[in-house]
Amino acid sequence: MSDSDKKDITQEEAPENAKGITNGRNASETLNGKTKDDFDLAAVYVSDAQYNRNIFFDTTPEAIRLYLLYNHWVLRIVVYAFIIADLALAIFEDPAVIPLPIWATTLIELVCLAVFTVRLVHYAKVIPRERFWKDPKNICIIVIILLSLVDMLIYGSLKATGYFAVRWSRVLRPLLLVNVTEGRQLRRAFRSIRNALPQILYVFLLFMFSVLMFSLMALKLFGKKGLTTNDGGAYFNDYLEIVFDLYVLVTTANSPDVMMPAYNSSVFFAVFFIIYILINTYIFMSVFLAVVYNNYKKYLKEEVRQLVRAKRHKMVRAFGVLQERKGEEGPVVTQASWNQLVRLVQPDISNAHRELLWSVSDDSNKGCIGKVAFVQLADLLNMQVIVVKSRPHPLQMWLPSLYLSSPSRLICRMVRHRLFVYAFDLIILVNAVFIGLDEENPLIANAEWAFLALYLLEILLKLYTFEPRAFFSKHEFWNWFDTVIVISALIATIINSYNSVRQILDIVFILRVLRLIRVVDSIKRFRAIINTLIKIGPTILTFGQLIVVVYYIFAMIGMELFKGKIRFFDAESTDPEKAFCGNPLLKNSLFAKHNYCKNNFNNVVSSFILLLELTVVNQCGFTAVTHVSARIFFVLFHIVVVIIIINIFIAFVLEAFFVEYTVDKSNLQSCLEKKIEELELGVKQYVLDIGNLVDAMETDDNDMGTSESTKAKPALMFKIASKRYKTVDGLLQRMFEADLDPEDFAEDEDFDPNNPSNVTFPNPNFDSV
Amino acid sequence: MSDSDKKDITQEEAPENAKGITNGRNASETLNGKTKDDFDLAAVYVSDAQYNRNIFFDTTPEAIRLYLLYNHWVLRIVVYAFIIADLALAIFEDPAVIPLPIWATTLIELVCLAVFTVRLVHYAKVIPRERFWKDPKNICIIVIILLSLVDMLIYGSLKATGYFAVRWSRVLRPLLLVNVTEGRQLRRAFRSIRNALPQILYVFLLFMFSVLMFSLMALKLFGKKGLTTNDGGAYFNDYLEIVFDLYVLVTTANSPDVMMPAYNSSVFFAVFFIIYILINTYIFMSVFLAVVYNNYKKYLKEEVRQLVRAKRHKMVRAFGVLQERKGEEGPVVTQASWNQLVRLVQPDISNAHRELLWSVSDDSNKGCIGKVAFVQLADLLNMQVIVVKSRPHPLQMWLPSLYLSSPSRLICRMVRHRLFVYAFDLIILVNAVFIGLDEENPLIANAEWAFLALYLLEILLKLYTFEPRAFFSKHEFWNWFDTVIVISALIATIINSYNSVRQILDIVFILRVLRLIRVVDSIKRFRAIINTLIKIGPTILTFGQLIVVVYYIFAMIGMELFKGKIRFFDAESTDPEKAFCGNPLLKNSLFAKHNYCKNNFNNVVSSFILLLELTVVNQCGFTAVTHVSARIFFVLFHIVVVIIIINIFIAFVLEAFFVEYTVDKSNLQSCLEKKIEELELGVKQYVLDIGNLVDAMETDDNDMGTSESTKAKPALMFKIASKRYKTVDGLLQRMFEADLDPEDFAEDEDFDPNNPSNVTFPNPNFDSV
Repeated sequence: MSDSDKKDITQEEAPENAKGITNGRNASETLNGKTKDDFDLAAVYVSDAQYNRNIFFDTTPEAIRLYLLYNHWVLRIVVYAFIIADLALAIFEDPAVIPLPIWATTLIELVCLAVFTVRLVHYAKVIPRERFWKDPKNICIIVIILLSLVDMLIYGSLKATGYFAVRWSRVLRPLLLVNVTEGRQLRRAFRSIRNALPQILYVFLLFMFSVLMFSLMALKLFGKKGLTTNDGGAYFNDYLEIVFDLYVLVTTANSPDVMMPAYNSSVFFAVFFIIYILINTYIFMSVFLAVVYNNYKKYLKEEVRQLVRAKRHKMVRAFGVLQERKGEEGPVVTQASWNQLVRLVQPDISNAHRELLWSVSDDSNKGCIGKVAFVQLADLLNMQVIVVKSRPHPLQMWLPSLYLSSPSRLICRMVRHRLFVYAFDLIILVNAVFIGLDEENPLIANAEWAFLALYLLEILLKLYTFEPRAFFSKHEFWNWFDTVIVISALIATIINSYNSVRQILDIVFILRVLRLIRVVDSIKRFRAIINTLIKIGPTILTFGQLIVVVYYIFAMIGMELFKGKIRFFDAESTDPEKAFCGNPLLKNSLFAKHNYCKNNFNNVVSSFILLLELTVVNQCGFTAVTHVSARIFFVLFHIVVVIIIINIFIAFVLEAFFVEYTVDKSNLQSCLEKKIEELELGVKQYVLDIGNLVDAMETDDNDMGTSESTKAKPALMFKIASKRYKTVDGLLQRMFEADLDPEDFAEDEDFDPNNPSNVTFPNPNFDSV
Repeated sequence: MSDSDKKDITQEEAPENAKGITNGRNASETLNGKTKDDFDLAAVYVSDAQYNRNIFFDTTPEAIRLYLLYNHWVLRIVVYAFIIADLALAIFEDPAVIPLPIWATTLIELVCLAVFTVRLVHYAKVIPRERFWKDPKNICIIVIILLSLVDMLIYGSLKATGYFAVRWSRVLRPLLLVNVTEGRQLRRAFRSIRNALPQILYVFLLFMFSVLMFSLMALKLFGKKGLTTNDGGAYFNDYLEIVFDLYVLVTTANSPDVMMPAYNSSVFFAVFFIIYILINTYIFMSVFLAVVYNNYKKYLKEEVRQLVRAKRHKMVRAFGVLQERKGEEGPVVTQASWNQLVRLVQPDISNAHRELLWSVSDDSNKGCIGKVAFVQLADLLNMQVIVVKSRPHPLQMWLPSLYLSSPSRLICRMVRHRLFVYAFDLIILVNAVFIGLDEENPLIANAEWAFLALYLLEILLKLYTFEPRAFFSKHEFWNWFDTVIVISALIATIINSYNSVRQILDIVFILRVLRLIRVVDSIKRFRAIINTLIKIGPTILTFGQLIVVVYYIFAMIGMELFKGKIRFFDAESTDPEKAFCGNPLLKNSLFAKHNYCKNNFNNVVSSFILLLELTVVNQCGFTAVTHVSARIFFVLFHIVVVIIIINIFIAFVLEAFFVEYTVDKSNLQSCLEKKIEELELGVKQYVLDIGNLVDAMETDDNDMGTSESTKAKPALMFKIASKRYKTVDGLLQRMFEADLDPEDFAEDEDFDPNNPSNVTFPNPNFDSV
């Protein structure tokens, strides 16, 4: 069919103006039709619009082929793999978790840098020369690569001649994550932080002024009272000490210790600390959140607005490539071109699905669509339409007499019954109690086998009742979860029963407990909350990257500053230095008494764990082993991570939850749904939203019933995964969709320097489609 | 003038239908005019609308007079004074800070209860009988009074016969604060908490499920490893202990201690805690904030919507009382009636101010206003119009030749110069350094006198230059602040120099540091932030009351449960029990080692301080001295205060800041401003908003210049304190004004059961006024 389609297109007449945008391209194209290159170009525009890529590639066929290669998922994964390898080098470099010789790490790093260079050269081939040199992220990568090489040279030669050397370029490594083409989300997060900085700065200055004032007051009030701290030192008689102590009080790390000496001396002094906590811990921290949240929202909105504009422009350009003039209706795209385009953009889409999308675009069955309807394509492709194939059970085909016999039907009815779910929820709860009980009792140990058998039986029964391909379809998260957990537990338990290794036993334990999570899925309201959490998951990953970048930089600096200052001794060690973490300065300190010796910067793993601890509670016994000025490192970390990044994280979770609460389906989604319903191809929608928990309660409880209830309906059905978006950008766009001005569409004419006049057309009203 | 006005009104003809609403009232009224009772009734309606009081009082003249008395500010203050006295009894009752004999506290409590009863009887006289018994807050107060009496009887008789007795009714006392008529804000806060509870509950259950699952996993992973905690106990081998430890980890109180034994044993175990902290501390706590914030917003919006409706209805009823038919324009209110009404509602308003408000309402100078314009009155009265009287300096009148001489003019010009402000900012900074230096150096001690003299000189110079009444007008916060601080510091320093008492010296120190705050006022951006904080201050007070109610209840229960378990010994004490806070169970515990003995429930003051510490960081060494189940108390406190109330507090600060960022002046405000400008009575507006910091930077810096720049203008001028609202309700209404449907106005006909048909009229468009 694909071949005949292509013929259709080349045979159709194409008026001269349809060539409009393609003027500057190669000479091999024919005047009367679209060449393969045209479709390639249009497909690239649509795909860029779909995934919000903003790369100004050359429009020559060679450049487009290179560009398609550049965007190929294998190459993207390779680049990320090498970035991870580059970052992971910190594990093997001095101070190392697993020491490798310098030549080995240097070699790996050189390979990584070579890969990045090749990738960059590839990118330079794709986009126009002048654009390449104007883009700061390319400059950034070049600088990082050059500085890394210089640093490697210096470090190598200094080490070879026995001098002290620092691998300072390691701090730059995480910046690669930000500056690769794929790091769009991360760059956006950094941009919104940068934009929020001025506002945060003013609040921060006021906050610091308040801390300084309170410190001055504390100095005057407590300095001369001769109070002593818990470890016998003078209390509050050095101004800088007080400032630091009061700053730490904001992080709540030293509450109530910092207040006790004053409070023990007089109840009235507690008032000082109460006012301080109220103003600085509660009010100022809330104001920080408010400022960060507000700015984050504001700038993100602006960025997403530009994203939507760029998307529409790309679609308009794709339309320009494929348009033909038909009658008096103005430029249109025929169904044949459209089919060809969609097949190029998304080869894995089924014919039926494609026809559904076309019937949404071409509502009046004209066989061609105008600009307005064409522009929707990117959004339509981003919408997750789940194709439900209503197939009979394979056993029904192989052994119809057995599968359709009355005992078999009874089993199926039983499995579908609500009591079956309740019975297994009960089994899970009993299992939870058994897990809690003593493992060494042989009865309990054997019960584990019984539970495993029961879970296996459940999965087999379900597979017997439901069509296996439907049961294991992509969107049945809990079915996959169940099966993977039960089978891994079975394997691990069998291995463990033959050869009891501690690590395997630990895994068995974890799997056993994870199995219990399934009980949450039975309770609608919990499922709704969990679904929301899962939906914001991908964006949490962006924050994960952000945190990794910041942590990595702080870990590298921290390792250079503090490595080896504190040593950790094994439990079996009898070294006398164990009592003070190998540093005499820590003798009798609370740090050593609390056994915090493993909280050190001796390698990258313990650095990361320590930084996480500092994020939770900013305790910094570290300053005892170095100069007091090391506190600057900890305060800086607190400001960057807790005041800025954690607040942005909270802001994002807040916003995402509000979207889940308030935003309804987009117009386009309702169109698609209406169309599915019109064509009588719909299946009962799963309730996925947390928004209205009461509604969720009132809808039917039976998720597995779909294959039964659709028996009388067509063999192929669709449903929309209502609030799921394939991309993070999609979620972001929905977050701000309500506020976006649809008029934007017609502006920003100079987006494409080659073809500035071809972009204007009236504001589309998706409602009318 | 007031008398002649009244005559005017009674002489005017009033058509029969003007009587409309007053049908049910007493017989003494005349048909042709409005009686004093009519005006009283209308004034009560307007005043209720202005302050958002929702009391269904009888409309008989006696009831109205009683109602006016009921709302008198003196009576309201008396009621609050007695509530505070009642709450403060906890200081004197066993366990007491200052012990008083039982008969004395009982007597005071009886007096308080009598006052509350009288107030309630007064309220019962004001409103219809059936309404009184339908109102849950009245029933609540009656029950509290009765239960308190019963408890006092039981306690008294049990004590008299030597039995153990508990004053359980003390827990009920803070509920009085909620249930008095004036506790509207507090009731609203509690209502919005109650409404948010179901949603919070589901997230909380899921959160607890997660904690329980992690605990089970921790039990299996670490229970059999034979690890020991820092104080030598077994690590993670009791399920309930683990649940508690992991719950506390969410509050970050025991981080990283709870993780160290596992982490010391293997790095991989740290992963368990990292995942736990990520899910439960960061994600779940953000979700709590999101749910609380969302619900808070939703229900508050609904409440404010009802408030606005009720306000409009009250204004319509006031209009109904005063309306007259004039020509074919339908019912109107004449200027004379309006004047009389405003004079009754707000006697302290100046004639010029009243005329300004009239000219805003009666835009076309018809001498009468319709319903639409009349309804605005409540909002107009709530708008803070500052009357600036441009009076000459008193010295100019008394000693014109001296004051207008060229040296005197030079002084004035100097004081008004920007450098004068900068010079004193510099002096403040130098002073800050001096404060930080050693007090005992005689140079420093004497410098203090010099600084005091300089500050006094500054105030005197300003008083010489600016008109004193303008300088000390109600809205010049910083002038008042400066003067009060400097004069108190002067007095305290003088007293201190004669008779050095430690307490006075402390006050001197605090005043000296507070003086430095003024430097913030010189920096526009800081002032903008501080003004926003000051603006949300009154509502923070509502949260203060909320916190007091919750703390008081927990303090009362805590005192009964834990009093005397831990004892505090003075620094001089040599009692051997001092080492373990008087409780052998605390021997060698960290609690005693950290000197936390004063963190106890032995009296109401230390209970409150301890509860505040628990709010900041939930450390609960307490469970060592009692049964483990005492932990329930601490977990409950954490859930109520941190998860619910602190989140609502953060939600409020967020919302208030967003309003400051986004909401512009209301339509009515712009009307008023336009009118002021039209009448050429305006003064340059102070920039009070944080919203646009850049704008704030660009406007003129000179606050004190008003009296100079207005010399050529009329003697009486107005400005609008732009974003300041007199009442908390005003701020709340502005917060949701943008979302409020103006159509609401015409609905809810059954608001007034006496007069359901008189309320309909078209939706007013304030823009058109």
